[in-house]
Amino acid sequence: MKIAIAGAGAMGGRFGYMLSKAGQDVILIDQWDVHIAAIREHGLQVNDGDVIETVQLPIYRPEELVANPVDIDLVILFTKSLQLEGMLQAIQPLIQAQTSVLCLLNGIGHETTIEKYVSKENIFLGCTMWTAGLEGPGKVKLPGGVNGYVVLQNLHSESKQTALRIAEVLSTAGLHARYSDHVLYEIYKKACANGATNAVCTLLEANLSTFGETTCAETIVRTTVGEYVAVAEAEGVDLDIDAMTDFVKTAFDPAGIGGHYPSTYQDLILMNRRTEVDCINGIIAVKGEAYGISTPYCAFVTELIHCKEEILGAI
Amino acid sequence: MKIAIAGAGAMGGRFGYMLSKAGQDVILIDQWDVHIAAIREHGLQVNDGDVIETVQLPIYRPEELVANPVDIDLVILFTKSLQLEGMLQAIQPLIQAQTSVLCLLNGIGHETTIEKYVSKENIFLGCTMWTAGLEGPGKVKLPGGVNGYVVLQNLHSESKQTALRIAEVLSTAGLHARYSDHVLYEIYKKACANGATNAVCTLLEANLSTFGETTCAETIVRTTVGEYVAVAEAEGVDLDIDAMTDFVKTAFDPAGIGGHYPSTYQDLILMNRRTEVDCINGIIAVKGEAYGISTPYCAFVTELIHCKEEILGAI
Repeated sequence: MKIAIAGAGAMGGRFGYMLSKAGQDVILIDQWDVHIAAIREHGLQVNDGDVIETVQLPIYRPEELVANPVDIDLVILFTKSLQLEGMLQAIQPLIQAQTSVLCLLNGIGHETTIEKYVSKENIFLGCTMWTAGLEGPGKVKLPGGVNGYVVLQNLHSESKQTALRIAEVLSTAGLHARYSDHVLYEIYKKACANGATNAVCTLLEANLSTFGETTCAETIVRTTVGEYVAVAEAEGVDLDIDAMTDFVKTAFDPAGIGGHYPSTYQDLILMNRRTEVDCINGIIAVKGEAYGISTPYCAFVTELIHCKEEILGAI
Repeated sequence: MKIAIAGAGAMGGRFGYMLSKAGQDVILIDQWDVHIAAIREHGLQVNDGDVIETVQLPIYRPEELVANPVDIDLVILFTKSLQLEGMLQAIQPLIQAQTSVLCLLNGIGHETTIEKYVSKENIFLGCTMWTAGLEGPGKVKLPGGVNGYVVLQNLHSESKQTALRIAEVLSTAGLHARYSDHVLYEIYKKACANGATNAVCTLLEANLSTFGETTCAETIVRTTVGEYVAVAEAEGVDLDIDAMTDFVKTAFDPAGIGGHYPSTYQDLILMNRRTEVDCINGIIAVKGEAYGISTPYCAFVTELIHCKEEILGAI
């Protein structure tokens, strides 16, 4: 299967690497020139904690591919949310009638953007609990001992067979993908975890454990999760507030991912980049307003992160 | 008039200095040993931006005064809110039937604490728009070009004459004090200004102007002020949300106090001290809950500041 990873950062690098090792015909698409140059010169370096392996994967800027188009069976979208629309505009000529597009971005509501560029029967929504980090241009770090998974579903009711086929291809590469009739549940569950911790850890400049050990963490998590539960319910997704709160709190375990600084922190504090907060918390405030549901914690934390982005001059 | 300043930090130092220069018999009471030692050795050093002046003012730990009691006409409470109850316990033996006690602390609701130690007819509530800084033990900085004022009122209806007399004594010292029939309005107005900026500037590690220039500042200020307005209304205090929002925003002017880092920032980030957030924002959340009024911005920002206090190990 010809698979294009659109957004070949840490997570795109992991998926490209694993799919390529499993024999799929993988190309990477990215817009970060230094990263592209590093991969072209040295290959993609993958550090799994024990061994550093180098794989040769073709990588292109979108316009290079558009100038010399290839037939693509599956595009996996792995950009940051702020780059999603720009990437879709740039690669739209490559998306043909038979090209499936799987969205694995963090956050909620990306289908609204994707539907502007891709016909509904070709869109597949998913989320993943795999993690990865970028050690520098061309260098991906895969945290050891973590078994992630992917859950995905067709957006159009007639595309279920294709969704099953995509899950099979991913699973054959060890990515533990499964089809779900209710992928929105999984997307909301992950968004809960991100929404209750990412922005707060960024404001506090704390990792997950450090935040989790504070007296107020329980209240902040439960109140934020409550807003997700209420909005999810309005969208026909049934989340339980106790179960979700407990799920979020598993991230605080220092023996697990507690030492991890969430992606919002990495983006803003380490990389001085604008964050995905609008797609993680902001979207809940926007949807809440539309449904008449009060979502002040999501609204406030979105505003605070935007303040911090502006103060730090994030790009 | 024998006046004791209980809590002789920056603001207590300013008031002690100005009252002493006006001929009042001033003593300072404090519990910070290094500060006490500095004032005993060198006097209180007052830097008004142009001239550094030194005044000799007696300063005591509470237990020293209790061991050798003096008759005090007026106690001005100027501790940090977290030290208020400890100070009242320590100086209670000095508060006699004729001793007036004027509270000028930041925040709302201190009378609940004071009433445990002082009879109601001797309690006077006020607030002040004077500012001051501490440059080190024994060294007070008075920002130039700032004309502050004091507003005060008797808590007990029969003590109005005493309130008028206290205002007169303060005004004679240049402190621009006036009696108000509705001091709670002034206290809420000041609490609005503190509540909409202090905690947020601390989380963002920004001064007032820097926060004020962000795109979201207007929304954060207006939403927070809205919570104060609603709680104040439940207490019979009529605040206008537009007027209060505009009042808060005057603090963002770089030509005014915009370069100032609020006291919460000074306490937590500069001095690694626990903050007064419970008396500024937390009290609004507590009162809101009692009145059935939603106050999520005050609640959330209180929780976030407590998280940060714990993470920084503030004392």
